[in-house]
Order: sequence, then structure tokens, then C-alpha cells
Amino acid sequence: MIVVMDLRATEEQVKAVDKRLEELGFKTHLIRGVERLVIGAIGDRKQILNSGIEIMPGVEKLVPIMKPFKLVSRDVKLEDTVIRVRDFDIGAKEITVIAGPCAVESREQLMETAKLVARAGAKAIRGGTYKPRTSPYSFQGMEEDGLQLLAEAGRETGLATITEVIDEKSLGLAVNYVDIIQIGARNMQNFQLLRAAGRIRKPVVLKRGLSATMEEWLMAAEYIMSEGNYNVILCERGIRTFENYTRNTLDLSAVPLIKQLSHLPVIVDPSHATGEWRLVPPLSKGAVAVGADGLLVEVHPDPVTALCDGPQSLTPENFRVLMEELGPVANSVGRDI
Amino acid sequence: MIVVMDLRATEEQVKAVDKRLEELGFKTHLIRGVERLVIGAIGDRKQILNSGIEIMPGVEKLVPIMKPFKLVSRDVKLEDTVIRVRDFDIGAKEITVIAGPCAVESREQLMETAKLVARAGAKAIRGGTYKPRTSPYSFQGMEEDGLQLLAEAGRETGLATITEVIDEKSLGLAVNYVDIIQIGARNMQNFQLLRAAGRIRKPVVLKRGLSATMEEWLMAAEYIMSEGNYNVILCERGIRTFENYTRNTLDLSAVPLIKQLSHLPVIVDPSHATGEWRLVPPLSKGAVAVGADGLLVEVHPDPVTALCDGPQSLTPENFRVLMEELGPVANSVGRDI
Amino acid sequence: MIVVMDLRATEEQVKAVDKRLEELGFKTHLIRGVERLVIGAIGDRKQILNSGIEIMPGVEKLVPIMKPFKLVSRDVKLEDTVIRVRDFDIGAKEITVIAGPCAVESREQLMETAKLVARAGAKAIRGGTYKPRTSPYSFQGMEEDGLQLLAEAGRETGLATITEVIDEKSLGLAVNYVDIIQIGARNMQNFQLLRAAGRIRKPVVLKRGLSATMEEWLMAAEYIMSEGNYNVILCERGIRTFENYTRNTLDLSAVPLIKQLSHLPVIVDPSHATGEWRLVPPLSKGAVAVGADGLLVEVHPDPVTALCDGPQSLTPENFRVLMEELGPVANSVGRDI
Amino acid sequence: MIVVMDLRATEEQVKAVDKRLEELGFKTHLIRGVERLVIGAIGDRKQILNSGIEIMPGVEKLVPIMKPFKLVSRDVKLEDTVIRVRDFDIGAKEITVIAGPCAVESREQLMETAKLVARAGAKAIRGGTYKPRTSPYSFQGMEEDGLQLLAEAGRETGLATITEVIDEKSLGLAVNYVDIIQIGARNMQNFQLLRAAGRIRKPVVLKRGLSATMEEWLMAAEYIMSEGNYNVILCERGIRTFENYTRNTLDLSAVPLIKQLSHLPVIVDPSHATGEWRLVPPLSKGAVAVGADGLLVEVHPDPVTALCDGPQSLTPENFRVLMEELGPVANSVGRDI
Repeated sequence: MIVVMDLRATEEQVKAVDKRLEELGFKTHLIRGVERLVIGAIGDRKQILNSGIEIMPGVEKLVPIMKPFKLVSRDVKLEDTVIRVRDFDIGAKEITVIAGPCAVESREQLMETAKLVARAGAKAIRGGTYKPRTSPYSFQGMEEDGLQLLAEAGRETGLATITEVIDEKSLGLAVNYVDIIQIGARNMQNFQLLRAAGRIRKPVVLKRGLSATMEEWLMAAEYIMSEGNYNVILCERGIRTFENYTRNTLDLSAVPLIKQLSHLPVIVDPSHATGEWRLVPPLSKGAVAVGADGLLVEVHPDPVTALCDGPQSLTPENFRVLMEELGPVANSVGRDI
Repeated sequence: MIVVMDLRATEEQVKAVDKRLEELGFKTHLIRGVERLVIGAIGDRKQILNSGIEIMPGVEKLVPIMKPFKLVSRDVKLEDTVIRVRDFDIGAKEITVIAGPCAVESREQLMETAKLVARAGAKAIRGGTYKPRTSPYSFQGMEEDGLQLLAEAGRETGLATITEVIDEKSLGLAVNYVDIIQIGARNMQNFQLLRAAGRIRKPVVLKRGLSATMEEWLMAAEYIMSEGNYNVILCERGIRTFENYTRNTLDLSAVPLIKQLSHLPVIVDPSHATGEWRLVPPLSKGAVAVGADGLLVEVHPDPVTALCDGPQSLTPENFRVLMEELGPVANSVGRDI
Repeated sequence: MIVVMDLRATEEQVKAVDKRLEELGFKTHLIRGVERLVIGAIGDRKQILNSGIEIMPGVEKLVPIMKPFKLVSRDVKLEDTVIRVRDFDIGAKEITVIAGPCAVESREQLMETAKLVARAGAKAIRGGTYKPRTSPYSFQGMEEDGLQLLAEAGRETGLATITEVIDEKSLGLAVNYVDIIQIGARNMQNFQLLRAAGRIRKPVVLKRGLSATMEEWLMAAEYIMSEGNYNVILCERGIRTFENYTRNTLDLSAVPLIKQLSHLPVIVDPSHATGEWRLVPPLSKGAVAVGADGLLVEVHPDPVTALCDGPQSLTPENFRVLMEELGPVANSVGRDI
Repeated sequence: MIVVMDLRATEEQVKAVDKRLEELGFKTHLIRGVERLVIGAIGDRKQILNSGIEIMPGVEKLVPIMKPFKLVSRDVKLEDTVIRVRDFDIGAKEITVIAGPCAVESREQLMETAKLVARAGAKAIRGGTYKPRTSPYSFQGMEEDGLQLLAEAGRETGLATITEVIDEKSLGLAVNYVDIIQIGARNMQNFQLLRAAGRIRKPVVLKRGLSATMEEWLMAAEYIMSEGNYNVILCERGIRTFENYTRNTLDLSAVPLIKQLSHLPVIVDPSHATGEWRLVPPLSKGAVAVGADGLLVEVHPDPVTALCDGPQSLTPENFRVLMEELGPVANSVGRDI
């Protein structure tokens, strides 16, 4: 930690800061620059954050040197984390495609989609059963009935299953039915839910919050891991910016960057990111090319009648074509699909 | 709802859209412009959102005409909502100042702060007991012990009490101890929590999410009201932007704008918005001048030793001076404090 | 254009708006909805923008139906624009890679870079000669001396040349020396410069502004085209967001989206977008996979000694490897490189 | 400057960085932390920025300690800068209100406005003569004819005059006609224009760019001052965010923050910031309450017929009421108007 003193800090102020740092167990180094004095403080970052140093007279600012995340960090684990689900791996050479409707609407809709996406090469079926909706008047999901349908679809097709949970109650139910738990963008900093997800052992897909920095996103993963669940998959799904031709701005640079900072697998959701199905195929290819370990794609047998997010859903036929086109892209960057 | 057809839409496509709109119970008007055809559709907005019209062939986009919020809207209730708490009103002529520490840390710390802010003219004491923290390794709050201290501080000083809840469990506890419930920025779209807050009858301060639009914020209030709790107070606390000299960007234009759109009271939290105590007094004055109904200000008896957010906390003496200076500002815009 | 009347608009107010619309030459359609009246106005969008309708009593808002851009629009020209430079095409099947240093620093530096990037497969050499720098104390470019070196590098290697201009004067000089003119992000709405660039006939690379929407970016291209220069190439180079692990957020969804809206070629600059050379190779592949027509990549023979933007520059060896790896990616989406 | 070494940096890498720092004339201090080594480097910040240290092997990042701005900084000049214009001061106790139409449209329109705003208490008349418009098809200003009208309005009413310039040519003309030169948001980083404005001696109002950080804004002012013109007035006019109920987000925290960082006067433009005249009065009061030295307000005799920005213009009557209401607000924070 570096403590930058104000240009006009007095000797007494410097001494007071130095003394307090030593009380807190830090070793200090005073560096007198051309205009300004800085103090290098060696010790536990957490200590200094709760120490009030920042507002002692004469202090201009603190500059942290260490990153705040530990368990998620590439610094503590050099090799990539690979997560086993049913008969496939997430984070290994093969790219994992998860597909399915925004919401589970009926047995018919789900089974039809599951069969078609399985045939096209998807590894898992997604389907919302608890929907976080902006309006209280929108369709809120089939809840446990939907979970049962998902489990059935998994049994019939061999696909792994994934669904979003929105609180501890839905998590407690979902964990009995599906293979992978998803925490959505709006709950990325629902810390109670993160802790609860840390106490299960099934893999958790953690979506990036609408306005979450990489650091906050990794700290949310740290919450899950700090409770003992190391099976975390990060999912980039677009961030909120001033641009509104697309619903969000897909931040594909997050993929290689997270891979520098962390050992966790990273997947991409181009459907929510853009809100428009025409943009899903090119951005799926882009995601694979930048190094994503998987994709989360919305597919609906009849987007026109979908109860949510029809405009961003591919038809099964469009999805089949996409899967065919993704093969060469994956190969071109040394991956399979 | 206006349906804008594509420049190259065929007559068949137009007919198909028109037919589907009629099936959904809409009355339609075709308007042929110089280059483009638009269809005006009269009926229930909700219907069209789930109708798939947006992705029918030949449709370029839908333009909603009606705002999505109902109960919160100034359209359904012209007069300002005034909320009674203990012996004072929020949303009336007098400006309500809520003050106190980021977190309840000890009886001593809380009682001292409560007495000092009461003497300076605050109406309510705030204090975090369940803290949503970015890092799992930071102090997470005193929980129910803190709630008991808050209740005690309220009894001793006559101040109303307010604390943040983070899930249904903490809400269930807090509602027994405090006068006002706060839902924080990170939980603004925790819809389960919003619904639960709608089933109590105590006032709820709903903070704006870090990247929430006005519309999303009002829709979150709609969630609470749709369950029957009409005592909602909106709190602007800064939004996330590219600027990082301040922690967030306080959006004071939200105050007069929300007052145009809604009948609910609006208060401002300049402490979290800026993250720096020196900016709190000028922005408090600014908030009062633009028409805020109240302020939420962090005060700590010894910011240097605060367990959280020391840098943005006023000392009791600085708070006392601020309260004195706010009087004339309030009067200058026809309010009292 | 749709005029949405206020919920409480009186009949007189409606009549007044209707009358004014007719005076302005619009044909109007009144549509009475369940709660609200809207007026469809058919005519010239420009007329209504300067008409004051928006602030007539009883008017809530105007909703434009037509897009404001004309010449850049895919609506007026269905086929892709292909721009010929020396012996290659931009916007055709082959992807155009432009490479070179942030700034021209010396003959030696430029010639060495030019030879190496030519050998690796680049089509053009870039090099800043007039640098828009945030600080007045930073290196500002070699100006005309740099232009002469660029021209020399072009002659010796057969590469096309490109440089950024910052005002009419530098444009007037540069047009004599280089094959392609670049207008940078900070000048995207320097309308005098855009007009001047519209009066030349050489191709213009127009970078997206730091916080420019797609619409503003296309309107900036419209400025150039409205003066008669149809050889415009759009360049996505990252937008400003709250995220600061990367310098900007590269918006790769802009590529397929612009291709929907416009017939102009689109290239991508991953170097400025990220500010970090390690991210340049994966994002270059991503850009090609989403459909970009070209790349603008910073390459410096010795990034450690570069006078500007060393951290985002590839070494010639890294560039050579990147070019080899890009081949299969280009092929995987039906392109060559 | 602090150089943070990577966790896995070798001793050789540390030595190489240390050696290069010494070659560049820095004195170095090695601080070995619990996990990581940092090097404190004392010397000229500019040197290190062009030194390539950032990309030497083993270096994780550079942390600058000194702020990049000099002449604008409160560090080099403690007392507030006060700028004399005609018979009044900007930056002193009295708040300066500048009012007038978005664009000069005719003698009649300008004279009428000038008389009315003068009577209401404005000190200066504004009026655009060179308009930077998003669309090439919009009204672009009366140019020199408009400047003559402005000068005439100044002579007749005694008001000071201000207009926006968009390039060196319009600056060269405007400086002969008006008292204050304005550089708009879109040109805040038009460095050629900033330098040219630094070579005149008339006061310059420098608007904050749409997505400019405080630091970039101050560096733009530094450009002007570095050429010798110390009469710079900063103008906050809203920044671009995800929120779109208002045109921009007015960042009133910029006012007290800039006053901490710099000695220059700061004024606020609530008209462009919000784009809606109803929000102008409350935000004008807010601006005065947070400590702004002045306001820039759009006033048009007949907003309905205005050639630009009618929706954000006050009528003269609304402006008169605002001026009356601003008096008590100014007094409440120790200022006059």
C-alpha cells in the first residue's frame, strides 16, 4: 500500500501517519519525491482499509498495490480450472454450447427445443424457471414445475441442465433438479445468494452484472469460492453503456483479460448482450475466436410466440446453422466444438 | 404502441402483422408515410410485449407510447405522497435529514452519534446492520445485535430509525426493530426482496441501482406498491459512469424529473454518491435546492476509526455546521428544515 | 413522426398541434388510444425538428420514425461499398491489415517497421505525424517531416500509407503524401474537418468517437459523404465505459450492426481499444470472426522505447505470429487475409 | 512514480528495471512487500511516461503519484482566479448569469432577447453563430452576420457577449466581435483550437466534453494556459451516461471537486445538460447551491419557433422568474446575483 501525502503536509502530519501505520503492524518506507512525499507501507491490505489512514490530516490518497481477490486469482493457481459436468468438461479444449429458451413455458416447448439443440451439438439445455423481470406485471416463470420439466428434458436427451436461481429458496429447489446453477446479472452482488451458492457443490455460472467492473465480478466469484465451492464459471453478457442500438455492449475483451487475471473458465451470452437474434451468430463466432470456453445461446422453437425475449432467440434451424459454422472457427483457434 | 414496418416490407407482411394485432385485441390504424408504413395499435401494452410482433417479418421496431409504470405514476395520483413516520412527515414542506454511521459498530458509537445528530436537527438515525460488501473478507455487520442497538437509540433520542435489509430474513427481523426499511442500490432489482417489502406496511427507502435508469427505478418501486405497500421513498445515490474522481456521479436532475413522473418523495444520499466527505456539504445544499425531500448523510464520531466508509463520513461537528447552513438554503426554495 | 400528447391534453391543445402540423405541410392522423392520443404526422422529418411542436402545450414527446442518415444507409444502397487503394480492395473478400507505429519517430524506426509488416502480410503502413495528445507536454508528432517519411516507406515497400489529420491544415498537407486519411476519435464530431475530408477524393478512415453512438458515428460519415467523398471506412476503436481494466471497451457488436445499417466497410483497432498488447491478438481474431473488413494494429520495432503507446504495440515478431494465426480465422468465416 | 513488479518477477528483471530507471535519471527505492516488490522512482513524471518501463519484463503496472496538470492546479495557485469582463467579475462573490438563444437567428430575435435578459439581471448575452450540429442537414449558424448582431446587441444593452467557435477561422473572426469565446463540448479535445485560444487574451469558456474525465478537462484547460491565456472559465454541461430520460447527466459534483483541484472559475449550463426547459430552474438553483460561479442558460423569445434547441429554452418570462428565485438561493450560500 502506498500512502501519498499532500503537497502541503507538515512534518507532524507525516509523523502521525507513520506512527499509525506502525501501530497497525506495517513496516514503512518514506520516499521524498521532487514535490511530494509518499510512504510505502508493507503489511496486510485489509488492515489499512479499515484503518482510517485515508482521512488523516495531510494524506492525499491511498494507492493499493495488491489485487483484492485471492482464490479466483491466477496468482494462486497457474493452471486453468476445468469443471466436469456429466460427461463433458467446461474449460478444456472443447467449447461448451448451452442452448435453450429464455423461459420454460411448457413440456412441449422444452422437449422440442431440447431435442433439436441436442441434435445440433449443444451440451446443455438452459431454461428460465424463476425469471427476474423488470416489471411486476410480466411472466415470472413456471417455478418448480419448470424445474421438473428441465430434469425430464435432461433425462430424455442426455443434455446437462442449467437454470437461474434468484434467492436461497429457488436455489434450494433447483439444486435438486439441475446440473448447473446460474446466478444472473441482477444478482451478481446479492451476497447472501452468492454465499448460499458457495455452500453447494454443483457448478455455478456467474453472470457479470450490468455495470460490474472485472474486479467486482471476480470478487463476487470470490464470495462463492470462499464458502468452498470452487466450480465457478464466469459468463460475460454485456455491460450497460450509453449505446442503445444494442441492449447492452458485449465486452469481448473481458474474455482474454479474465483469463490473465483468473484460472476460472469464461463463457459468453451473446443473446442477452445484444437483444437481437441477427447479431447472435457473428458475436458467437467472435466469442469463440477471442478464447471463450463456451456459449450460452437462446433458442426457441417459435420466437414469435415466446413469453420472453423472443427478439433475441434463434430458431432451431438458425441454431443448427450456427453450430455448423462455429466448428471451423473453433478449429481456427485450436479448439473443438 | 406504434409498429414501424421496414422500408422493404411487403403488402403480405403488413397484412400479417395487422391480422395478428387484431387477434390480440388491438384496434389498428395504418399510416403510410413518405417512405415507410407505420401501424398504430390501440390496446393493452402488456399484450403486445408478449406477442412476438417485434420479430414478425417486415417489422423494423416497436415504439411504446405508454409508460410501463402505473401505481408510482403522477398520471394516476396528481398530489404528492406524504409519508408519516413517528412525529414527522416525509415529502411535506419540512426537509427530513437522516444521519448516522455507515455501520453500527458498538453501543457507545451509536448512542454518541444519535445524540449528536438529534441535537443538530436530524429526524432519524441510520446505521447498517447487514452490510452488502464487495469483498467477502470485509466487516459484514452486527446483524440483530445492531438492530437492538438501533431500537435503543431510537427510544433514547426520539429519533426514527432506519437500516438496510439484504434479504427476506433480515427484512423479517428489521421490521420488528426499526421505523424505516432501506433497500440498497445492489438490491434494487432483487425482485423477491421488493415483493417482500411490499407485504410490510412500514416505509421503504428504495435506493437507485448503480446503473438503473429512472424507468427501472420506478418499476422497482412499482414492485413494492403492487404488493400493497404505498409508503415508498426514492433515494438518489449516484450512478456509475466513466468518471472516477468521485465514487459515483450524483444525478441531481433525477430529483425534479422523478417529481414530474411520480408522486413519491425523493431523498438524496450525497455520502455514497461522492465517497468523499468534503463534497457532502455542497452537494447536500445542491440537493435541497433542486427540490429533494430529504437527505441521507453519513456521520461518524471518529471517521478515522470507522469500520466502513470513513472517508465519506462527516464528523458530528461538521454535520452540525452543515445543518446550520442548510436552513437558509431550504428557506430560499420555500422549504423548512 | 409520431406526436404523443399528454394524458391531460385538452381538445384545444390537440387542435393547435394538429393545425401547426398542417401549416408545416404534414398530413396528420389522430389515433385515440385507451388513455392517450397520438398524432401520426407524415412529411419531412427535418421540418418537424425545427418546428417547436415538441414544446407546444399538451405535447409529451415526439417519436421519430425515420433514421436521420441517408447516404450512408443500407436503405439507399443495398450492396457493400468496396474501396480501391493501390492494388487492393477494402470491403471485399480479403481482409485488410494496416500496421505500424503509433507515431513516426525516425526514418530508421519507420523503414524497419514498414519492411517487417510488409513481409508479414500487411497491406498498409500507419504512423502518426500529427498527434492529438491529452497533455500539451507530450510529444506532438513529426508533422510534415513524418509525412515525407511515410511516403518514402510507401514507395520502398509498396505498402499503402495512412496517417491521422487533426485540422484542415494537416489534411491539406497529408493528402499530398498518403493514400488514406484518418480522422481520429477526438475529431469525429469536428464538423469542419469532416466537411474538408468530404472535399478530397482519397479514402477516409473515420474512427468512432469515445462516446459516440452508432447514429452519431454514421451521421459523421454522412457529413463526409454529403460533400461528395463516398470513400469512407468506419473504424471501431473502443468506447468509454465505467470499466477501467482496459483503456476502452471494444464494441465488436458494432461491426455486424453497422453492416446492417450501412453499406460502408468497417475495420477494427484493437490496440487503442484495449491499451494492452497482450489483448491485441485475441481481439484481432474476434474482430475478424464477427465480420470486420480489416484491422488497424500498432507495431513498433522496440515498444520499450516508443515515444507513445508502447504498452499497446506489438513487436514485429508478435505481429508476424498474429498474421499467421489470423489466416485460419479469416478462412473459417469465408474470408482471406 | 511507483513501479509495481509482477508476483513472479525475477531478480534479473528487477535489476533491469532499476537500471533503466537510473539511466533515465530517477532515484529509486526498492520496497519488498509480503508478496510483491515495488520500486519508488523519484524524478520527472514525463520521463517515465515515454520510457517504456511499463512493458519491461516483470513489470505489472506503473502508478503515477503526481497529477498531470500544472498551471490549472490549485497546488500552484492557492487563491481563486477572478476574471474581469467589461464591468463585472467572473469567479468573485457575484454569480454571473449568461443567457440567450441557442442560435442567433435574426436581429429582431437577438435584440428582443438581449433587452429582456438584461432587464432580468443577466450579465452577458450568448448566441450561437457557428453551430456544431450532429446532422449536416441542420441549420449551421449565421456566421459573421451573427457575430455583427451579437456585437450590436452588446453595444445597445451593455451586456457582455459570448459565442462558440469551432475552428481557428471562426475564432479569428469572433475575437473581433465578442467579449468571451466559448469552446464547446465536441471540441474540448480539439487541441489545435485550444492552442489557438491560448494565443488570444480574451476569456475562454471551456465546456466539458461529453465523456471527458475531470482530468482530461483540466488538461484541456492546461493547453490553453500553456500558450499564455490564463483567462479560462470551466463549464460543466452534463456528461453522457446510460440514462436517457435526460439528454445528458449534469454532474454537479464536478463544481466543488474542480474547485478543490483548480483555481479556475466554474460555471454550469443546465439547458444543454438536461435538454428540457422544465428542469432548468431547479438545476440552476442546485448549481448555485453547490458553489458554481455562474450559469449559462438558454432563453428564446419564442421557443416554439426556435431554429435549434427550443425544448430546452426558457421563455423570457420564465427566465425573469428564475432570476428572482435565484437571488435568495445565492444569498443562502453567501453569494449575490
